[in-house]
Amino acid sequence: MERGSCTPTNPDPRNSNQNYPMTELAVCLTPSLIPLFEVEHYIVVVIDIFRATSSICYGIENGAEAIIPVSQVEECLAYQEKHPDYLLAAERNGEVVAGFDFGNSPFSYTAEKVKGKTVVLTTTNGTHALHLSRNAKKIIIGSFLNLTSVCTWLKAQNYNTLLVCAGWKNNFNLEDTLYAGAIADQLKDSGFVLDDAAIAACDLFQVGKNDIPAYLSKTSHSERLKKLGIEKDIAFCLQVDVTTAIPVLDGEKLVKLGG
Amino acid sequence: MERGSCTPTNPDPRNSNQNYPMTELAVCLTPSLIPLFEVEHYIVVVIDIFRATSSICYGIENGAEAIIPVSQVEECLAYQEKHPDYLLAAERNGEVVAGFDFGNSPFSYTAEKVKGKTVVLTTTNGTHALHLSRNAKKIIIGSFLNLTSVCTWLKAQNYNTLLVCAGWKNNFNLEDTLYAGAIADQLKDSGFVLDDAAIAACDLFQVGKNDIPAYLSKTSHSERLKKLGIEKDIAFCLQVDVTTAIPVLDGEKLVKLGG
Repeated sequence: MERGSCTPTNPDPRNSNQNYPMTELAVCLTPSLIPLFEVEHYIVVVIDIFRATSSICYGIENGAEAIIPVSQVEECLAYQEKHPDYLLAAERNGEVVAGFDFGNSPFSYTAEKVKGKTVVLTTTNGTHALHLSRNAKKIIIGSFLNLTSVCTWLKAQNYNTLLVCAGWKNNFNLEDTLYAGAIADQLKDSGFVLDDAAIAACDLFQVGKNDIPAYLSKTSHSERLKKLGIEKDIAFCLQVDVTTAIPVLDGEKLVKLGG
Repeated sequence: MERGSCTPTNPDPRNSNQNYPMTELAVCLTPSLIPLFEVEHYIVVVIDIFRATSSICYGIENGAEAIIPVSQVEECLAYQEKHPDYLLAAERNGEVVAGFDFGNSPFSYTAEKVKGKTVVLTTTNGTHALHLSRNAKKIIIGSFLNLTSVCTWLKAQNYNTLLVCAGWKNNFNLEDTLYAGAIADQLKDSGFVLDDAAIAACDLFQVGKNDIPAYLSKTSHSERLKKLGIEKDIAFCLQVDVTTAIPVLDGEKLVKLGG
């Protein structure tokens, strides 16, 4: 019998007569679908691989005191008036906004630049996903950079988990879903029950995992980013397990979990 | 270099300097995402594998004069008052509504029962997808039953195509996406450019295609339908290329394309 490697091989506990506890692993493929979930019952992982959540993970790893995600350039400027020491990072459609300290390139988030600093980050899709998830039990930030660290923490929580793909302009994208599949792959044998989108993401990860950059190289988003001349950012964001810090939302700020 | 079999191996025409025409194949993974598309620029294929669009394809193949999709049981009854000869089919949450002729089981749509008849069909997800797609250039109905017939027709049109998965309560489901992937698999080498969701669907189809019933056997929806005792319906809906008729929306009615 053929089956995808992420299709459960054991009876789904939802369909048995046993009342043992079930932990749900659901994937929300785009922010448009967040209203379908009662997010207050989930730990949410926000995913925006190219490049917001990769840069946030790297910045927190490198000692940024906090990263504040905002959706509008104007909000970013308002922070600077109150806190002139804050660094401003603003990007619209993948490009740095004129006059700002930097954009979303992970290379802007080195220890040299961000250690001990607070960064106000304006980003299109990631902030949108964070905002719509704001009532979650807890919100953490995931990327390939801190993949196993995120999975280890989620396993330890053993709590219903929703992986929110920031996508692109509210639609599906392949890179965020592939990362959701990478998480599902690590959690599927640890008592989590996958929903259909998690099964699909996990099976896609099986297709792409042997060479993630090659698998993603022809997607719409990565083509678009290539045109912006940021191939190095893409390669950076697809490195697996080079960091361990997990950013967590605390009020309006993303800070280091347990930090 | 590893890549999914549905990832384009030739340069994407969108990213070349050549101005040759491009035909888009996009997948809308749930009805919630339809507003992201300008449907008037697409031929839409509506997909609700378990079981509405499978039953519609089978009914039109078997000589039903027309099938009228409606979203409310009350609308269905209103048709009967005006047209006592119409057959009424109503289902809510997968079960026949009391007092109606039949529900959404494809076995209700045999030639014996529907030939020359008009059927008013109430269905939860399929009608919702049809309604939201109503401004499309043309709307046809797809299922595994008429897969190759649909693909042959789409290739002949060579027009931007949107595959709309009806999903389940506005969220993603695996069976509708797998079928979208089966279409993408047939169209990918015929001048269509796949969006990210179409690439993902196509790659999922590669994972599941050797034994579609086994691949889908553990999904949430098929588990739910099994509980309703309709395993035979599921097996029926997963037969490939047993019909050729293509239902097309004409005003409020689904009729046989070219019929």
